[in-house]
Amino acid sequence: MNDAVTRETLMARLQDALGAAAVLSGESDTAGYTQDWRGRYRGDALCVVLPSTTEQVSTVVKLCAAAGVPILPQGGNTSLCGGAVPPSGGPTPVLLNLARMRRIRQVDAANGSMIVEAGCILKTVQETAAGVGRLYPVSLGAEGSCQIGGTLSTNAGGTSVLRYGNTRENVLGLEVVLADGTVWDGLRALRKDNTGIDLKHLFIGAEGTLGVITAAALKLHALPTHHALAWFAPRDPAAALRILGMFQRACASRLSAFEIMNRHQLELVLAHVPNRRNPLGGTHAWHVLVELGDTRDAHALEAVLTETLGEAVEQGLVDDAVIAANETQRADLWEVRHSVSEANKKAAVGLTTDCAVPVSSVPEFIEAATRAVHAIVPGLDIAIVGHMGDGNVHFIPMFSFEAWAALADSAATGDAMRACVNDVAARLAGTFSAEHGVGQTGLPLMQRYKSTAELALMRTLKAALDPNQLFNPGRLVP
Amino acid sequence: MNDAVTRETLMARLQDALGAAAVLSGESDTAGYTQDWRGRYRGDALCVVLPSTTEQVSTVVKLCAAAGVPILPQGGNTSLCGGAVPPSGGPTPVLLNLARMRRIRQVDAANGSMIVEAGCILKTVQETAAGVGRLYPVSLGAEGSCQIGGTLSTNAGGTSVLRYGNTRENVLGLEVVLADGTVWDGLRALRKDNTGIDLKHLFIGAEGTLGVITAAALKLHALPTHHALAWFAPRDPAAALRILGMFQRACASRLSAFEIMNRHQLELVLAHVPNRRNPLGGTHAWHVLVELGDTRDAHALEAVLTETLGEAVEQGLVDDAVIAANETQRADLWEVRHSVSEANKKAAVGLTTDCAVPVSSVPEFIEAATRAVHAIVPGLDIAIVGHMGDGNVHFIPMFSFEAWAALADSAATGDAMRACVNDVAARLAGTFSAEHGVGQTGLPLMQRYKSTAELALMRTLKAALDPNQLFNPGRLVP
Repeated sequence: MNDAVTRETLMARLQDALGAAAVLSGESDTAGYTQDWRGRYRGDALCVVLPSTTEQVSTVVKLCAAAGVPILPQGGNTSLCGGAVPPSGGPTPVLLNLARMRRIRQVDAANGSMIVEAGCILKTVQETAAGVGRLYPVSLGAEGSCQIGGTLSTNAGGTSVLRYGNTRENVLGLEVVLADGTVWDGLRALRKDNTGIDLKHLFIGAEGTLGVITAAALKLHALPTHHALAWFAPRDPAAALRILGMFQRACASRLSAFEIMNRHQLELVLAHVPNRRNPLGGTHAWHVLVELGDTRDAHALEAVLTETLGEAVEQGLVDDAVIAANETQRADLWEVRHSVSEANKKAAVGLTTDCAVPVSSVPEFIEAATRAVHAIVPGLDIAIVGHMGDGNVHFIPMFSFEAWAALADSAATGDAMRACVNDVAARLAGTFSAEHGVGQTGLPLMQRYKSTAELALMRTLKAALDPNQLFNPGRLVP
Repeated sequence: MNDAVTRETLMARLQDALGAAAVLSGESDTAGYTQDWRGRYRGDALCVVLPSTTEQVSTVVKLCAAAGVPILPQGGNTSLCGGAVPPSGGPTPVLLNLARMRRIRQVDAANGSMIVEAGCILKTVQETAAGVGRLYPVSLGAEGSCQIGGTLSTNAGGTSVLRYGNTRENVLGLEVVLADGTVWDGLRALRKDNTGIDLKHLFIGAEGTLGVITAAALKLHALPTHHALAWFAPRDPAAALRILGMFQRACASRLSAFEIMNRHQLELVLAHVPNRRNPLGGTHAWHVLVELGDTRDAHALEAVLTETLGEAVEQGLVDDAVIAANETQRADLWEVRHSVSEANKKAAVGLTTDCAVPVSSVPEFIEAATRAVHAIVPGLDIAIVGHMGDGNVHFIPMFSFEAWAALADSAATGDAMRACVNDVAARLAGTFSAEHGVGQTGLPLMQRYKSTAELALMRTLKAALDPNQLFNPGRLVP
């Protein structure tokens, strides 16, 4: 902070500009913003500001820049890696939450686009699109509370990446407030535009370190109206990979999900979440949920599902399978998949990882990571669940609460376990963060896994666009 | 050029590093590189270098940087806007052509990816992908000679954007030589990777101004094996837009092309290209080619085509229609569409434009641009042909050769006509370059249509990544 501007002066200026009700301070008013939803991270903020317009965001940026106080932009505060709350050390930021910028500025069904402000809740955007017969495809666990701006800043993944890509692939344009308070209006809703560097991609996935996203032009798709779903037990991950290829060849973009889960993960769901049924009789080492979607003809969709699965059975790749006979069964099978987080939280201490590797390397990744973990703790339980179609596997070493408490240095053990999994991904040309982002958890991993050239490029961009380290200093690039 | 290093010294160093056969000089050896394929642009190069490896590219960059001589990276030299050849003024560059870097480093069908060097011909990449039962979807007129590096640097569009997006959407990773000669290895072939700023998007579409792309990891898709195609006469562009929406709702991603053409454009094809037949009886003001593709079931595909078109007829939106009965008819109808450039070149002087607007604004764009052109030259012929599904319309005022020759200042008239079309696009939140890029033609338009904030951001990036103006100085950002 500049000596000339005290905390009180800055707050007074912010209150003048935004109104007193848009500037929160004091523990009770700000606690929901300064601590993450799982209670793992908290830090201090000078205050929480809630601007309602792009102009107000610009004003906040200028006032903070003049005062030399950093800004932490925040969406719905649903980060899984501490990305949305202040650090516990370092200069205390103003926390800029976009919740009040929630206007839907335009819906253009014929163009397949929507212009929305950063504070819109993801679910609201999905519902608004569906209301005009279109799909905004990004879908994830936190969709009821996460904000569009947060999904953009973290390039959110989720369950529809296989069919529709990450958030990045579903953005046509952005409006961003830059470090000097300038508003860059890049809200073009065009499918094609080759006029210079495509600036929006700088800000998508930059976790708020290069500017504040205030609005976005989103891409809408045809709304699928029919679905077909199967749950089956592949012989092993290599068989699952071959079956994935069969579905891709037969179904092209009808294939909308291909999720894998190991036996231990399924058993945790069945043991710890009420009313979850084993989809198949007996015990199987591996499970896959495969879903198709289309805009027409449920019979044809079920036919291709049955036919492809039948081929896989004939080739000896599948031990057992069931096809959802109706919407209720389909919902029930998805519930098993969606109960994973709840089950794992209740069952044990899970060391969640978020690796992606080339899809073709998923079987090798699972095998090598298992070996690596068991070399440290022989026989340790491992829950495996992932978006196999994207190469994204959450490989989760599980300690019983008792075993974890008995560890001499549990933090070090946790770090070592995660490191050996991430090392396997790196060796297979993969990544330590497929969808969760860097946040606070991943910062040391950037140093470990990124090349010197890549880190240097990122530092160059940060220095160029935010020379005074106004936005989220110390984040993203170590 | 630095005083200390003469042209001869630099060439000697380049020959030492690459071998004499990889450094061309003299008019006869370099003419094919320094002049564009249509003969509209030419400039001088100190020499043409043809490196075979990434390391050699790095060496060339370091030698040129040390000598203070700029570099013009070049692919297949198929630019439509002078983007691939040296300027006629300014410092004389070393022309760095990537043609000898044409290894296919990896094909991973199971991952749906290929790693190729920048000099690979687009058609070779398509064929290699098809050889493993996969599709690399980028497809355009120059595909037999353009290089992958060029398609990346210009974010090439083409005829499959409606279904598969631009080149940008089909890239997973890049290898780039930076301004100091550093090689950034970003050749990850992952569907998901949220570890920092996504650097590849900086270089895609930057037209060689930020670095030299030497290799890319490309995204492959399921290979469509069945197609269905119709040619119909919509009542007007507004009717075509409604029919596009009907196809999108009914067919989702089966819809692979929706191309519009006006009567004058069709008449030019029929008059000037041998063996082209009028697809429909009689005369119609507007024509649309619509194509569906799928990985299975030709009957279902034709059924949805017939059904959707039938609905459009019932609603009075279509005057006449024909469905291709077999592959020969399908090829013939595509030939009509693909004969546009040849026809226009023979017929008259066409002032080609390359605007895109929101798809919903295409009818208004056509109407307003027609009014604007006719306000300058009443009754002037206009050929209109475009990728309506992408909002990309080539709106082409046509002067007879005689009328053009009779103009007092034809260059000024040409500029004025194009400007009034581009102004209409800008008013409708569109762009003056949907797919051709900026090159030399578009540079003044960047100044005219881009905001101060956007140009400033691009200049900041250029200064940060290429501080000494080594790559393509003066290009892309005025």
